Amino acid sequence: MKDCVIIGSGPAGLSAALTLAANNIDFEWLGRKALSDKVGKSELIRNYPGLTAVSGKEMQRIFKEQIEKENLPLSYEIVSAVYDVGDGFTVQTDKREINSLTVILATGVESVKPIPGETEYLGRGVSYCATCDGRLYKGKKMAVISDSKEYEEEARFLAELAGSLLFIPLYKDFNAPESAEVISGKRPSLITGDLKARTLEFSDGTSYDVDVVFVLKNAVSPSSLIYGIETDNSHVVVNRKMETSIKGVFACGDCTGRPYQNAKAVGEGNVAAFSAIEFIRNNKKK
Amino acid sequence: MKDCVIIGSGPAGLSAALTLAANNIDFEWLGRKALSDKVGKSELIRNYPGLTAVSGKEMQRIFKEQIEKENLPLSYEIVSAVYDVGDGFTVQTDKREINSLTVILATGVESVKPIPGETEYLGRGVSYCATCDGRLYKGKKMAVISDSKEYEEEARFLAELAGSLLFIPLYKDFNAPESAEVISGKRPSLITGDLKARTLEFSDGTSYDVDVVFVLKNAVSPSSLIYGIETDNSHVVVNRKMETSIKGVFACGDCTGRPYQNAKAVGEGNVAAFSAIEFIRNNKKK
Repeated sequence: MKDCVIIGSGPAGLSAALTLAANNIDFEWLGRKALSDKVGKSELIRNYPGLTAVSGKEMQRIFKEQIEKENLPLSYEIVSAVYDVGDGFTVQTDKREINSLTVILATGVESVKPIPGETEYLGRGVSYCATCDGRLYKGKKMAVISDSKEYEEEARFLAELAGSLLFIPLYKDFNAPESAEVISGKRPSLITGDLKARTLEFSDGTSYDVDVVFVLKNAVSPSSLIYGIETDNSHVVVNRKMETSIKGVFACGDCTGRPYQNAKAVGEGNVAAFSAIEFIRNNKKK
Repeated sequence: MKDCVIIGSGPAGLSAALTLAANNIDFEWLGRKALSDKVGKSELIRNYPGLTAVSGKEMQRIFKEQIEKENLPLSYEIVSAVYDVGDGFTVQTDKREINSLTVILATGVESVKPIPGETEYLGRGVSYCATCDGRLYKGKKMAVISDSKEYEEEARFLAELAGSLLFIPLYKDFNAPESAEVISGKRPSLITGDLKARTLEFSDGTSYDVDVVFVLKNAVSPSSLIYGIETDNSHVVVNRKMETSIKGVFACGDCTGRPYQNAKAVGEGNVAAFSAIEFIRNNKKK
């Protein structure tokens, strides 16, 4: 049993990880190789104390160097769910299950709003994780909605398994899997079905039969990760200590609301880590 | 009329200043040459994203360089009071009065608790500002409680004005003003008087007649700066938007409570600045 799992590798997750490490907490940190797309895409950051007029790319490089130098335990895994198991949490990733006393959510904010039906059918014909759920739909009709180029590898993986595959890139200059039918220039607008998802509809009124819709995107809404967590307009509700409505779960960074800023994320990551440490000290079985 | 005045030059104040500047807000920033003693005295900071395992001195140097490069309007002034004047605030310093629509408090937390009687007699025989109030007590019996070496210059200024001066350093290796009587090795414990302060008592039971007690320290409690601001155990009460109980006054950093951390301060400074900007946009007379 770990003391803490941090989900997300943007500035909030990094800040939390540095503070847990400095306090000798036994934790895992799950994130992505790019750390945070949002940081990397910032042109020029003029209001982060300590880094003067820095480009997003340079900030990302500095953060990566810090992670290496401080030997922080970042692993590249995709989290599909967090289960409350009574005396802690089970974090399910595309590679394993991790048991932990506390969880810090630093998942960012979705750049794209969920499609109507997406959250409702999650786990019943909608999936966020190609490597977790791809094999379940071997030979079936798959649709893959991809939010960025970095998911094209996963789309190719799915194309090899699928009976047929619709590839729906939400960006330009895409490389579709060879065998895929590509739908671009219109947006997916609705997922419908019965007990499970059956149909993917588009803004122009066209619709396609599907067995599963893979939605591959940077940030997923915390309410689809953890059942019952209180949210407000897709942001996790937190207090000044970064406590969520679920005891032992803390949140920080863009997922808790505006302003979407590096400095704010870093501050909240720090506070979330100290609150988790306090919780661990009070609740850890001796 | 300025749009905003930031009081305090630690990491919270710097973060707020960077964000106001990046948003073209017309503001003044009041602080100290050392920026923040607390930062400067940190041995090694291991949990600030972007600066890997940095000493406090190095962080201070980096912050100073950033202030210069970004051409931030920091002026070295000591604030003695903030008055609510209905359609804004008047900030009184040792050099001038500034009218402003909003105020951001980034005053830090007092390293020393106020002496009993200190807050009660403030403005009536207790002062935090040698250059503001020194001349009022020309030829009188002064006591100077100094929290750090950096106030010795102010103590010398007072010694030249005083009829007699008690110098009470709360640290070792002090340089007392030549004409002063030095009291060290025991702590001031109580200020008493009638309508104004008259007597300074010490932990060993000794007491001294005084006309004024100057308490020279890094941070003064916000409740002695702004009348009526809601506090909780010497911290300013704020919500998630860093709003205080007084509309148009925001607070950030150590003065809002624990954890006393650079990252937390920087995050709150950012949020306070965005909340002030929102307030300015909604309340500025066209």
